[in-house]
Amino acid sequence: MVNQKKYLVSPNIQNNTLTQKIEGKDQDNKKINTRVIQENSLTIFLNNQEIVTLMCILDHPKYLAIGYLLNQNMIKKNEKIKKIDYDDELKVIVIRTNIKTNYEKILKKKITTSGCAQGTIFGNIYEEIKRIKLKSKIYIKHEWIYDISKKVNLTPSLYLEAGAVHGCVISKKNNPIIYMEDVGRHNAVDKIAGYMFLNKINTKDKIFYTTGRLTSEMIIKTVKMNIPILISRSGFTSWGVELAKKTNLTLVGRAKGKKYVILSGHHRVKF
Amino acid sequence: MVNQKKYLVSPNIQNNTLTQKIEGKDQDNKKINTRVIQENSLTIFLNNQEIVTLMCILDHPKYLAIGYLLNQNMIKKNEKIKKIDYDDELKVIVIRTNIKTNYEKILKKKITTSGCAQGTIFGNIYEEIKRIKLKSKIYIKHEWIYDISKKVNLTPSLYLEAGAVHGCVISKKNNPIIYMEDVGRHNAVDKIAGYMFLNKINTKDKIFYTTGRLTSEMIIKTVKMNIPILISRSGFTSWGVELAKKTNLTLVGRAKGKKYVILSGHHRVKF
Repeated sequence: MVNQKKYLVSPNIQNNTLTQKIEGKDQDNKKINTRVIQENSLTIFLNNQEIVTLMCILDHPKYLAIGYLLNQNMIKKNEKIKKIDYDDELKVIVIRTNIKTNYEKILKKKITTSGCAQGTIFGNIYEEIKRIKLKSKIYIKHEWIYDISKKVNLTPSLYLEAGAVHGCVISKKNNPIIYMEDVGRHNAVDKIAGYMFLNKINTKDKIFYTTGRLTSEMIIKTVKMNIPILISRSGFTSWGVELAKKTNLTLVGRAKGKKYVILSGHHRVKF
Repeated sequence: MVNQKKYLVSPNIQNNTLTQKIEGKDQDNKKINTRVIQENSLTIFLNNQEIVTLMCILDHPKYLAIGYLLNQNMIKKNEKIKKIDYDDELKVIVIRTNIKTNYEKILKKKITTSGCAQGTIFGNIYEEIKRIKLKSKIYIKHEWIYDISKKVNLTPSLYLEAGAVHGCVISKKNNPIIYMEDVGRHNAVDKIAGYMFLNKINTKDKIFYTTGRLTSEMIIKTVKMNIPILISRSGFTSWGVELAKKTNLTLVGRAKGKKYVILSGHHRVKF
């Protein structure tokens, strides 16, 4: 097992509220007790406006809410967060900023653009992303790709405890430092974005590892965070690859064992 | 490989528009050509109302649209479909029914209830589902669980060609007969629902196999289709298990190799 002390934040498997013990039977008709992941709802308010209710794991509601609003363009990167109130009985979080917000229009647009395949994303973000070119000159050494995957797999996690979650990890060189999990892979990314924003962590020299697939929305969120390298053990979709090429993102997929495939930005991989 | 002729419908790997060839590099810095899955948007109209735009694989737009509307309670089971028009340039599909529809209210509710983890689902469906008790007396033999998984894995599929998709399968006893895939697992379920509805296939004596996780939304859709047994090679979430117990659905998860776990309705599994 990897020592969790090497992380700034990593899954808290000691927290019993994140999983639930359930009685069942196994393939030998034997009674068993097993842990399953505990979903919850989290309702996010921005100032006095209700924005969304997410199904999620409630380990980091603050980071999730902030990351969600950032990735939906509802909070700008230079915005000051005045106050965060979380009510863990009602499972409601209220984020207060100095700027008066009114997102009715954007919220309306969501109705016709959200797709099951991709989580939910509000309008106009595609347009913004297409104009970005990631300029970071950092590189990743060939062997780090295997090394990062291995370290993540050996870190104690809710995935190893109960399954049914996705993991997202920020790595500096080949050292994973932030590890977030959620039932929704987009929630896991949003938790990462929220954590890095509130803790003012530089993103340009980091590597992003995810267990989820490399769809366009995953690319959008990585580019929005200004992270130049994205690795996944899962596969690609065509729009994901297209967007990665346009934005100069290094995209490494199907990273399993010592194998992987690079479909964009291979100049950042050092052999 | 499993003979595809045994299926009523199964993945069409000959259709070149469903994947895209992309040049990249592998772990040995060698140029490679690989296939990735081709996402598309599909905009669904019900009569004269725009309902949603889904990111999906466009192999069965008709089944996807009908299944989506059924699972969102926008078409009732006894409703007559008057006409289906699909424009494959605009990627728009229009479903026409005899009943005048107005879903502005339901569409509005969606804004605050959709969760990334669970795809999108419109209001009030939870309430309806909780009152259902599946009464089907069919059973599944212990060894079929392994048998179905194996047959699905050995069927030619977009997953084997390009990865990054989920599969959903309907099986009669241990014989898979309908196999749908999509970038979104909920789209794959909706394609199945649409196919079974339009082809008037009995659901009560079928077994549903999915590669996706057993979240509450997956349970809801299975129960809505009136299918009594649901198997997944992935894990469970707490709400999924709770809802399966309430509705008397047989829930088998973590089906890998010869292992599996039953967390609800084990009276339908014959040892």
